[in-house]
Amino acid sequence: MKAADVFRTLAAIRARAPLVHNITNLVVTNTTANALLAIGASPAMVEASDEVEAFARVSDALVVNLGTLTSPQAAAIKLAVAAAVSAGKPWVLDPVAVGAIAYRTGIAHQLLACRPTAIRGNASEILALAGEAGAGRGVDSAAGAEAALGSARVLAERTGAAVAITGATDYVTDGTRVATVGNGHPMMTRVTGLGCTATAILGACAAVESDGLAAAAHALTILGVAGEIAAERARGPGSLQMEILDALYALDEETLNRRARLAMEDTE
Amino acid sequence: MKAADVFRTLAAIRARAPLVHNITNLVVTNTTANALLAIGASPAMVEASDEVEAFARVSDALVVNLGTLTSPQAAAIKLAVAAAVSAGKPWVLDPVAVGAIAYRTGIAHQLLACRPTAIRGNASEILALAGEAGAGRGVDSAAGAEAALGSARVLAERTGAAVAITGATDYVTDGTRVATVGNGHPMMTRVTGLGCTATAILGACAAVESDGLAAAAHALTILGVAGEIAAERARGPGSLQMEILDALYALDEETLNRRARLAMEDTE
Amino acid sequence: MKAADVFRTLAAIRARAPLVHNITNLVVTNTTANALLAIGASPAMVEASDEVEAFARVSDALVVNLGTLTSPQAAAIKLAVAAAVSAGKPWVLDPVAVGAIAYRTGIAHQLLACRPTAIRGNASEILALAGEAGAGRGVDSAAGAEAALGSARVLAERTGAAVAITGATDYVTDGTRVATVGNGHPMMTRVTGLGCTATAILGACAAVESDGLAAAAHALTILGVAGEIAAERARGPGSLQMEILDALYALDEETLNRRARLAMEDTE
Repeated sequence: MKAADVFRTLAAIRARAPLVHNITNLVVTNTTANALLAIGASPAMVEASDEVEAFARVSDALVVNLGTLTSPQAAAIKLAVAAAVSAGKPWVLDPVAVGAIAYRTGIAHQLLACRPTAIRGNASEILALAGEAGAGRGVDSAAGAEAALGSARVLAERTGAAVAITGATDYVTDGTRVATVGNGHPMMTRVTGLGCTATAILGACAAVESDGLAAAAHALTILGVAGEIAAERARGPGSLQMEILDALYALDEETLNRRARLAMEDTE
Repeated sequence: MKAADVFRTLAAIRARAPLVHNITNLVVTNTTANALLAIGASPAMVEASDEVEAFARVSDALVVNLGTLTSPQAAAIKLAVAAAVSAGKPWVLDPVAVGAIAYRTGIAHQLLACRPTAIRGNASEILALAGEAGAGRGVDSAAGAEAALGSARVLAERTGAAVAITGATDYVTDGTRVATVGNGHPMMTRVTGLGCTATAILGACAAVESDGLAAAAHALTILGVAGEIAAERARGPGSLQMEILDALYALDEETLNRRARLAMEDTE
Repeated sequence: MKAADVFRTLAAIRARAPLVHNITNLVVTNTTANALLAIGASPAMVEASDEVEAFARVSDALVVNLGTLTSPQAAAIKLAVAAAVSAGKPWVLDPVAVGAIAYRTGIAHQLLACRPTAIRGNASEILALAGEAGAGRGVDSAAGAEAALGSARVLAERTGAAVAITGATDYVTDGTRVATVGNGHPMMTRVTGLGCTATAILGACAAVESDGLAAAAHALTILGVAGEIAAERARGPGSLQMEILDALYALDEETLNRRARLAMEDTE
């Protein structure tokens, strides 16, 4: 996997404008839609049980985010995931605060049986999904990304998903291969929902790139590079959020190749 | 209809601060409220079935947006619309993604019987509302605005509404007259919910301007001119969204008169 | 109470990153979370009935906002408040549009029996909560803050809460003491949800400052000073919203001490 592959994925999104079906949390609907528009995808937030199955079938990818899960939403998610899987569409899972809250942890474990294409979470969330006692406290992660890599491998093998752990360095594994992404900026943790944005961009990448590991690594590189550019222009988290959208929109091949810190780890 | 009329409507909004009751989608609540505040209106998002009837009666206009329709919301919308109509208040409909999704298409058709003051959608949505096979794919429009004008005329005659089709050029018709608005900027399609913003501003205009065709044409001119000013200042869709609010807030008569590209078409 | 106390509270938030549990309205979820992140707190929006009790117990403060109240949300709020109270956690109430809408007025009065740590509203909302005929029209306030001070005192004595009335000058009372905050900028009324932001920051302050009157006065000073700095940099309400987040993030002791207009009134 090389930086050139990342731009190829971004260019494919811009060319095909994949329809990305999001069932996501109340905090990030607007910023998720704007991030997807900024990279050239076509976002839609559809979560009524009456609508999700038909919509998942015509979409190019489904993004499921558990950030403000309710019972009606959980029911809609199960319908949407089943429809996406049966239509052969990729779907990605963002297990926000799983481990910290028992209800959504149970739902998340049920969803793992539906073979997600990819999963993105912080270390605590991935540890909890893998069945380890997480260190989660709300949506923040108390554990380092690298410490969750072993659990991510187990989770990837068990579910067939590419599993991404985001942190200062991001790790992505499909159980055998491991990719690392060193892009990003610490101020990004002071903007709500950038993890959710990463997962949504991963959904768009999965719509045009069938290798889940590559889709995840490319998505994290795209957002990480945009975040770095934005941080150079921003005075604080308010301007950072705005600048990230502008940077995603303007991201070109030369910039991406020069800034990408994407690598494959040698694995045994 | 002249550019001077547009500013007269905007000045009336600023003077009277009409209370605009919105029942809208989860993606645009914040940006819709901010756009209404920026033009001087007083927005409120009230959608609980326990509250909508009383609130619709005391509001100056009701805006109904189907973007993330659920069954409870559909029930609340019907109550609110009936209350607004019985109190003689204008109400406007934004049929987001109607045609692309069967459930909301059915609800939208039921609402047409309640005689909306105005309807704003893209070409696919208006074609679908008029009963034509739409080309809709999610919230994007695959059809050009002009191609939907005939259907918009039929829809206007059938419902009594002014029907606005937004696109590169916007068209508004009440069945006999046709107004066109040439303002706006292509980058506006990369910011989520600006169509919803247009409909909300239309609601504010309808609160102070009883001619639905004029209210719709004025609203689209106001947002289109603000979008052009914003695009001159913006680096991408993130800054565009922010600059549009600033431009709406600062819009003055001289700028509006100079930039407005509003015309009445001669009709047979 | 001195300006130096305000910075001490802000520094404690930055040091401890209190987990602030929000059950809030659909319009402000994103901006509330971002404001809490900008001051160094750790926000979480959790409102499913299945999750709120457990989450309220592990959080450091609970913020309840009635802005888009629905029946399921009202049920969740009651569970969350009871759990917070029984766990000895501070909780704050934002009675958005209470008085203007009967349903939520009833719920708000029920919540008063649960002894909130603090209440923040505009004059109309506080008058309505105190049982006076409010002058409310939606979320705007028609009455001046000072005119509601007597009612706020009565409300504070009856409930044990510190009661904050925000307006051009803010007033906070616990029934005996009265603090005033003269910071802020008129353009802040053109950004949706800054009142809600004030209440959320008050929640974070209450997590680190046990005197409710001080927590409220400090919160209003922090946001008011940030708003003034932002208004000096902003061209309109769009840039103001962004600049407020940047200003909250960067707020330092010298700036806060120099700009704070916080005073204790002599009371009989």
